Amino acid sequence: MTDVLLRNGLPWGLGAPADILVRDGLIDRVAPGIDSPGALVVDIDGQLVLPGLVEAHCHLDKTLYGGPWVPHSADDTLAGRIGNDLGRRAELGVPSVARIGALLERMSAAGTTHVRTHTDIDPLVGLRGVEAVREAAARSPVDVRQVAFPQHGMLINPGTAELLEEALKSGVEAVGGLDPAGIDRDPVRHLDVIFGLAERYGVRLDIHLHDGGSLGAWELELITERTRVLGLAGRVTVSHAYALGQLDEAYQDRLIQGFAEAGVALVTAAVYSFPVPPVKRLRAAGVTVACGHDGIRDLWGPYGSGDMLERAMHVAYRSTFRRDEDIELALEAATHGGARVLGLEGYGLSPGDRADLVVLPSGSPAEAVIVHPGRTLVMKDGVVLHN
Amino acid sequence: MTDVLLRNGLPWGLGAPADILVRDGLIDRVAPGIDSPGALVVDIDGQLVLPGLVEAHCHLDKTLYGGPWVPHSADDTLAGRIGNDLGRRAELGVPSVARIGALLERMSAAGTTHVRTHTDIDPLVGLRGVEAVREAAARSPVDVRQVAFPQHGMLINPGTAELLEEALKSGVEAVGGLDPAGIDRDPVRHLDVIFGLAERYGVRLDIHLHDGGSLGAWELELITERTRVLGLAGRVTVSHAYALGQLDEAYQDRLIQGFAEAGVALVTAAVYSFPVPPVKRLRAAGVTVACGHDGIRDLWGPYGSGDMLERAMHVAYRSTFRRDEDIELALEAATHGGARVLGLEGYGLSPGDRADLVVLPSGSPAEAVIVHPGRTLVMKDGVVLHN
Repeated sequence: MTDVLLRNGLPWGLGAPADILVRDGLIDRVAPGIDSPGALVVDIDGQLVLPGLVEAHCHLDKTLYGGPWVPHSADDTLAGRIGNDLGRRAELGVPSVARIGALLERMSAAGTTHVRTHTDIDPLVGLRGVEAVREAAARSPVDVRQVAFPQHGMLINPGTAELLEEALKSGVEAVGGLDPAGIDRDPVRHLDVIFGLAERYGVRLDIHLHDGGSLGAWELELITERTRVLGLAGRVTVSHAYALGQLDEAYQDRLIQGFAEAGVALVTAAVYSFPVPPVKRLRAAGVTVACGHDGIRDLWGPYGSGDMLERAMHVAYRSTFRRDEDIELALEAATHGGARVLGLEGYGLSPGDRADLVVLPSGSPAEAVIVHPGRTLVMKDGVVLHN
Repeated sequence: MTDVLLRNGLPWGLGAPADILVRDGLIDRVAPGIDSPGALVVDIDGQLVLPGLVEAHCHLDKTLYGGPWVPHSADDTLAGRIGNDLGRRAELGVPSVARIGALLERMSAAGTTHVRTHTDIDPLVGLRGVEAVREAAARSPVDVRQVAFPQHGMLINPGTAELLEEALKSGVEAVGGLDPAGIDRDPVRHLDVIFGLAERYGVRLDIHLHDGGSLGAWELELITERTRVLGLAGRVTVSHAYALGQLDEAYQDRLIQGFAEAGVALVTAAVYSFPVPPVKRLRAAGVTVACGHDGIRDLWGPYGSGDMLERAMHVAYRSTFRRDEDIELALEAATHGGARVLGLEGYGLSPGDRADLVVLPSGSPAEAVIVHPGRTLVMKDGVVLHN
């Protein structure tokens, strides 16, 4: 494998221009004026260098990306969207290896190197979504980690828990939960099952929590308590957590303290007008925050571009972040935060880290988020994918 | 002036492909299979055709667009942002004809043909902003209409009202107001002055209203009552109107009914997490709704691209619009709604309308909003500007 020398880049966080020498898929050196005979030299002319972007919450299996425009056909209720999804996915050929592949290609071109995707599992679709995602991922340079996700409920949808377990046996990397109270109607039993699976199979856990207000807040307490008692710090993530954004600051701070102590991470998608968790105060307390698109062009909604820098812009925008150092918190969510949620080893821009790199014509990390210009170079494991 | 024949387009709202013949700056015919010897023929290959996009609320005079990235330097308070603006605009050369010109060029390339911009007027800057915008606009194909805007207060900033009047005498097209209660501290007297100027100079009125909750709602009542009594239907606009998005539906409906009867229009920018007015219910009641960016890369905040289709996406997104017909309401705000707010004559895609056209590779208006791909052709008054 030929060495690659990225000449004259601006690595995020270094504060000065430097060359980056890539050898055997890893970052070998970061310094000004590296001389490395035999290396393929790419002059990146003072452009910003970021570590590979991490999409920490999407639904690849549902996507219609790359196909013709499909007008949204559900009504405005959650039940309507679930019914519409169940009714139309066969007609539209969902899950589709081709569509998933098209979206992964788009993500990769935009610099995403790692993806956590929540794959629907229910008695009707079985493990077909898991298999479709696996097949598309095998043909893509993107590192895709699945969450076995009971989109249509687990306790209320008999047979689903068994299928989740089957998915984990087949190698799916994480198990998911979904509104233990609001949808599954029995929060304690719901958490018994998914935490049980997480422990038994040694996998990570990521719980969709749309439940709002005091109900959602109480569920956040349950999840935090269980994570602490079971010693699962760093392995449990709550996605969305709309309730957190709805509470007064004093209650938020109590929950945030709990997340920090128990090691619970949060993922936000900053979609629509739904509440965004208090990213700045979560980070100040040391809680891991990541972000993702949620659905991208699917039967649940038509939005989403696949560009994680644009998604970070939404997180920053909805957080009313104006100052560079605040906007960088959103970029951190789309990079290091996601890496922690996925449990990636060797992630970053230091010597010894995997050479997953994104180059773009921005003068600062904040500008990269706000403008999110086209990527000029994307590298995964030392291989230049887009240039 | 050579005729132009746009061959095989998909004009928004027509429901079928058609050719568009442009003659003497106007749309001459819209029909399939037009034969027009001597015309310059441009085959647009089934692409969507929209009328020129209308930016109904921005601040051209403040922009730093096209220059180097300027990290945001204000604190998170309104007073902090005002002080920062006053303190740094001279240092950064604001207002700048070059920066305004760069932004107008960007807007034009993205298909914006008409702009309403709120220009700061105060005893320190005087009419320099008005003159800078006028100078940049004179060199641009974009039709720019200014609002004489008391950004730093009017009653609380002696000399400002006189400068507003001077601006109107010099030909500025509209007069602006700003939080009559929250900032100017005397809502009735504030409205006396700006409605008085609007009547005396026969100009339109556009009031920035950030005041929230019951205070903002009461100010909306005052503005509505005054518009009705003075018979200014169609000439009064409230920008932002955050209060409206905060009220319960019954109170919203009473205000909406008042807007419809009095002829008050609303402009939303859908910025940050600030409340977005209920666009769908406003339109159902017949109230004109337009949209704009608010600031674009200025001392008030670093966001904004200048692309009105992207802005329409934000309006649709924050309104939780998923269905095509709902998403089209946001596009309507960025086109016909803005045209009504600005009082444009001959706006649209019908024979006799001015040939202000945008062509882009989308199969439907909703797709155009969500994806907002690059524009393939922009025409203003029959002249192809970008192709």
